[in-house]
Amino acid sequence: MPAASCVIGVDLGGTKLLAGVVGPDLAVRHRIRREAMGLDQARLLNVIADAVTELREAEHEDVAAVGFGIPVTLDRRSGIAIYSTHLPLAGVPFEAVMRERLGIPVVVDNDGNCAVLAEARFGAGGGAGDVVMLTLGTGIGGGLVLGGVLQRGWIGAGGELGHIVIDMDGPPCQGNCPNRGCLEVMASGSALVREASLRVARRPDTQLGHALEEGRELTGPFITELAHDGDPVALDAIGSVGRALGVGLSSIVNMLNPEVIVIGGGVIAAGEMLLGPARAEMHARALAPARDAVRVVAASYGEQAGMIGAALLAREAAGELS
Amino acid sequence: MPAASCVIGVDLGGTKLLAGVVGPDLAVRHRIRREAMGLDQARLLNVIADAVTELREAEHEDVAAVGFGIPVTLDRRSGIAIYSTHLPLAGVPFEAVMRERLGIPVVVDNDGNCAVLAEARFGAGGGAGDVVMLTLGTGIGGGLVLGGVLQRGWIGAGGELGHIVIDMDGPPCQGNCPNRGCLEVMASGSALVREASLRVARRPDTQLGHALEEGRELTGPFITELAHDGDPVALDAIGSVGRALGVGLSSIVNMLNPEVIVIGGGVIAAGEMLLGPARAEMHARALAPARDAVRVVAASYGEQAGMIGAALLAREAAGELS
Repeated sequence: MPAASCVIGVDLGGTKLLAGVVGPDLAVRHRIRREAMGLDQARLLNVIADAVTELREAEHEDVAAVGFGIPVTLDRRSGIAIYSTHLPLAGVPFEAVMRERLGIPVVVDNDGNCAVLAEARFGAGGGAGDVVMLTLGTGIGGGLVLGGVLQRGWIGAGGELGHIVIDMDGPPCQGNCPNRGCLEVMASGSALVREASLRVARRPDTQLGHALEEGRELTGPFITELAHDGDPVALDAIGSVGRALGVGLSSIVNMLNPEVIVIGGGVIAAGEMLLGPARAEMHARALAPARDAVRVVAASYGEQAGMIGAALLAREAAGELS
Repeated sequence: MPAASCVIGVDLGGTKLLAGVVGPDLAVRHRIRREAMGLDQARLLNVIADAVTELREAEHEDVAAVGFGIPVTLDRRSGIAIYSTHLPLAGVPFEAVMRERLGIPVVVDNDGNCAVLAEARFGAGGGAGDVVMLTLGTGIGGGLVLGGVLQRGWIGAGGELGHIVIDMDGPPCQGNCPNRGCLEVMASGSALVREASLRVARRPDTQLGHALEEGRELTGPFITELAHDGDPVALDAIGSVGRALGVGLSSIVNMLNPEVIVIGGGVIAAGEMLLGPARAEMHARALAPARDAVRVVAASYGEQAGMIGAALLAREAAGELS
């Protein structure tokens, strides 16, 4: 492809679609957002294809390729989405469908893989060869760049970093995970809400306790907001989640010896209140010299990581096809 | 290098050295074994260099290169052995020292990495691109081949698969590991002895109980021997270690989606008595489709894996240099 061509990156989350035209300098030129929740399969595929068409019409230059990050487990042997927790995409040969509807080169990957690619190459990973990313939201996703290469595993089902066990007899995990004591059930946004609920019941005479009495809903963002204001229960809950995260990081550091671990997702709004305890716990548990060499940092692309990573994949695919 | 050249592979364990001349067909032509335990640094380096010289003299053809697998944590940025639990090699620039003494190309890696390379390329991994190996002995070592490439981590300290946490509040780990509830303390040969001790105290009227009364020492091989004879305590202890191993495997499967997991080391003498419970526990905990796709198998090279892997590294290095 000509070096100056544009590509389109599409990040399909569990509830919304974010898509943009991305230039050769990685600048996002046009950007659109669409609702994805509650649509049936036919409507969802229409919304996705229409979003790409709208962006192509808005862009005056040719678009060389489209990359999609979608929240499914892909079997790379067949190209079919095997599991999809949030969207009706199971069984869909997504790449083939979109190539046929759009008529330009299409590349598809898991949304977590797209995000780690963007952060590793151009974001908080700063181009390091060994980068692990964890995305802390309602659940925990992630991805691995090792030896400079995105590692998807044999059939493309790897990178499920939320489902490493830190407490084999711990609480049952979430969603369709049959495991116990996974990082996801100990250090996600859901875990933060659970930890804060347990603590505020014992300390109702706090800012958080009063807010609950007044009918406020206990959510991750609200807990983080109160922690920034110094509420002791909120701070304590974030610290607890950070320490659980640190246990998982010690496993990752010992196993993979990464240069950078990037923490993204909604929960990273807590910043150093989360990362401080996570780093301390990791450092107390992991082996030298890997524990001293690793940097644990906040993601830099925020909600745009998946879209930019999908665009990077499209750029690589277009380069190979040209 | 000419395709028909020989190389030498040296596997330096914590107690002994195993070295051999390896032909282009991977057949081991000459093989020697030396004691390594209790030597000071100067004597140890002499024993190693002398073993290589002896093999070169025994071989009538030219030897193109020597590969060493050594039980240390290497910092690949400097080539220096950082940590060495069993041998006085910390601080030694091992590759530079051996190149200077031997006068032919030398390549050095961690012994676990050598073993996984041999098993992944030509052993139980059968050439698969995504292979994880765990070596269950007194401790647990391991290594990773992902995307067809040996993954050592940023500075070469990766592959410490014995030090992934499966029980964050579990027993303190062994040696210089500051962690708790690592796979090593739950599923190694040491764990097997501990589990059998606990069980035989409650069931002294068993074959194992009687043997202990008669003064037999409780070791991994002895427990395995009695389990093969059907002793219920020995079988139960191996099953317990197998289930703990399976918890660790569920983390590995979710994270890396390997095609093959190879289990080696002395403990694998228990065979299916260990692998059966390990597979069942992994399958009950890990995510589909990765859990259904992976094969968990016994290593095929036995104690020769490290030596053959070191020879493979030497062959690759000689190819690059020629």
